[in-house]
Amino acid sequence: MYIDPIIKGIEISDIRKIHERLSAYKNVINMTIGEPDTDAPQKVKEAIAYHALNSPIKYSPVGGMPELREKIAKFYNEKFGGNYNKDNVLVTVGSTEGLSSTLKTILAEDDEVLIPTPAYVGYEPLIRVARAKTIFMDLEENNFILTEKILEKYITSKTKLIILTYPNNPSGITLPKEEMIKIVKFLKDKEIYLLSDEIYASIAFEKFTSFAKYYNELKEQLIVVNGFSKSHSMTGHRLGYTLANEKLQAQIKKISQYTVTSASTLSQYGAIAALDYCSDTTELSEIYKKRVYYFVEELEKLGFKCLKPKGAFYVFATYKTIDKFKNVGSFDFILDLLEKTELAIIPGITFQVEGYVRFSIVHDLPVLEEAIARLKKYIESK
Amino acid sequence: MYIDPIIKGIEISDIRKIHERLSAYKNVINMTIGEPDTDAPQKVKEAIAYHALNSPIKYSPVGGMPELREKIAKFYNEKFGGNYNKDNVLVTVGSTEGLSSTLKTILAEDDEVLIPTPAYVGYEPLIRVARAKTIFMDLEENNFILTEKILEKYITSKTKLIILTYPNNPSGITLPKEEMIKIVKFLKDKEIYLLSDEIYASIAFEKFTSFAKYYNELKEQLIVVNGFSKSHSMTGHRLGYTLANEKLQAQIKKISQYTVTSASTLSQYGAIAALDYCSDTTELSEIYKKRVYYFVEELEKLGFKCLKPKGAFYVFATYKTIDKFKNVGSFDFILDLLEKTELAIIPGITFQVEGYVRFSIVHDLPVLEEAIARLKKYIESK
Repeated sequence: MYIDPIIKGIEISDIRKIHERLSAYKNVINMTIGEPDTDAPQKVKEAIAYHALNSPIKYSPVGGMPELREKIAKFYNEKFGGNYNKDNVLVTVGSTEGLSSTLKTILAEDDEVLIPTPAYVGYEPLIRVARAKTIFMDLEENNFILTEKILEKYITSKTKLIILTYPNNPSGITLPKEEMIKIVKFLKDKEIYLLSDEIYASIAFEKFTSFAKYYNELKEQLIVVNGFSKSHSMTGHRLGYTLANEKLQAQIKKISQYTVTSASTLSQYGAIAALDYCSDTTELSEIYKKRVYYFVEELEKLGFKCLKPKGAFYVFATYKTIDKFKNVGSFDFILDLLEKTELAIIPGITFQVEGYVRFSIVHDLPVLEEAIARLKKYIESK
Repeated sequence: MYIDPIIKGIEISDIRKIHERLSAYKNVINMTIGEPDTDAPQKVKEAIAYHALNSPIKYSPVGGMPELREKIAKFYNEKFGGNYNKDNVLVTVGSTEGLSSTLKTILAEDDEVLIPTPAYVGYEPLIRVARAKTIFMDLEENNFILTEKILEKYITSKTKLIILTYPNNPSGITLPKEEMIKIVKFLKDKEIYLLSDEIYASIAFEKFTSFAKYYNELKEQLIVVNGFSKSHSMTGHRLGYTLANEKLQAQIKKISQYTVTSASTLSQYGAIAALDYCSDTTELSEIYKKRVYYFVEELEKLGFKCLKPKGAFYVFATYKTIDKFKNVGSFDFILDLLEKTELAIIPGITFQVEGYVRFSIVHDLPVLEEAIARLKKYIESK
């Protein structure tokens, strides 16, 4: 029976494949997954439990409850200097559905989408399903910093969209503000969309600048994607949102409606509580900062070189600085490491950068110490 | 800026448009919406509240928790004579996402999809987005009963899929078992998928036969779509599922993963409770049966003629049997009715059948009596 060949051609992600191998090991330290180990705030849990028992959990209005949309706009304006109102906000089933509904609305066959590497793995399959083409921008020679100059080199008449992810998954890096300003100026009035995936914006180790700050300059073009999975450890509640001009949102909303109807009403109550009581995520950021800084320092003692994370909970490190691993492929590296030490991480090739690996820092210090000990033993054994 | 012309061309549904007008009226009886007025079972609410407070609500496995998938398979096998196991089950964000991910996986450009009328409004936009074409099968001359003979007339070399919805929205009718058997035999071994949308199967006024009973005959072709929104009044929790052969599900799962990641973990706990404690929906069916039968009887006293519902909570009735309305369009009919009586219903044309209207029977008897009184007055005033 017929199955769409594009869908057939999409591979299950490396991350999932590695994840599935883990059950074969007894004493695994799992640093593969992008899920906070922290729990949702107590206030959020209580609000959800309260409404589960006491409110009729009916269909939410398509695109999200007006009350929540208003709070999200206010949050973005206050925290990130945006200029949004509730009609700029679309509430989605996690940021994933925000991405998927947006890409479906703005991409056409043969369009080109530019993404700097290392790149999050969820974009390319969605772009492919939209019959468009992903062009990865290799930034290794510039220390993975995107500049207006580099961007310009990749732009063609087919470029429809640029996707930027800061703080970045898998590296935690951000874009220097002076480069942001140049990129905004460069893109202004071009027929090119900018999608800024800011899902890690609330886990920041120093002041984070959102593209929302430049919404006035890029009103027609800018789509910000965000959600509550990482900022409030609400992954299982599937609640995200996008910010864009009202006209574009009206179109994306139609796709969202026919794809999912709307996000869970109960999760929306949880999100309201998150914004009402827990919009300050400094404490969470401090937890991850401490861990990430510790891990970077220890990795570099072992001879790795890391991109310096400014947020999120990942460390992206190269082992090419350690002579004996110089010519090892990243998939081979992580498989051998897993087999010998039961430490599970993700190869850089998954994010389009060879010679690197990603560590998810979703464990507390004792586990991180043990991970470092295993790595040390592994390197010495070679 | 570019927006996909197909998406631009999709209209916001009539139902929503009418719904939006309602705020202008003070004393509306709203019989437009397909949402149960009943509440989710207490056991479901308690399970959700319990897990919200006490379980870590992390990402669910893509495609749904194994425990829930197993229970769904068992439920369908026991209740509807299916032959499924957990790998046949994909848990989705409401039945809507099940539909959307399935159609995206199996449809290609220029494919034809056959749907009998009256037809649920959510299919056509999804088919259009997949670049395929909807062919509505007009069954009015055969009392809206699909037969193998009629189906055969519509089949072309381009037919890729047939979508059947029984108990039907908007009419509540089902397909006679002898016709089902003929249709199954006719479709067997053809390169045509059958999608059976059984979202109302648990609200049945007499024994309902699911296409799941014929899974062995249509193993390669059959996709059953269902969910907890109508059977357990869980609309706001967004939890549905599809049943199909394992190979097809593996493909649909990839699309589902990249579109939404997975359904809400908390909603899945609710669904487990629904199956554990409330899988018998006889009581709910009795509530709707009593109301629907009452409403049909009263409508016919007024001169309407109704399709006889065997399930769901709708009445689809023609006013062409009332002389003075014979030549009135259904949109004009419902707008005038709304303006004069503040009774809100949906025109048949929304479901591709002119001269009919749909009543959602999601109110208790006193409200239904009032609706009938308003209709009576309206008819007499003409």
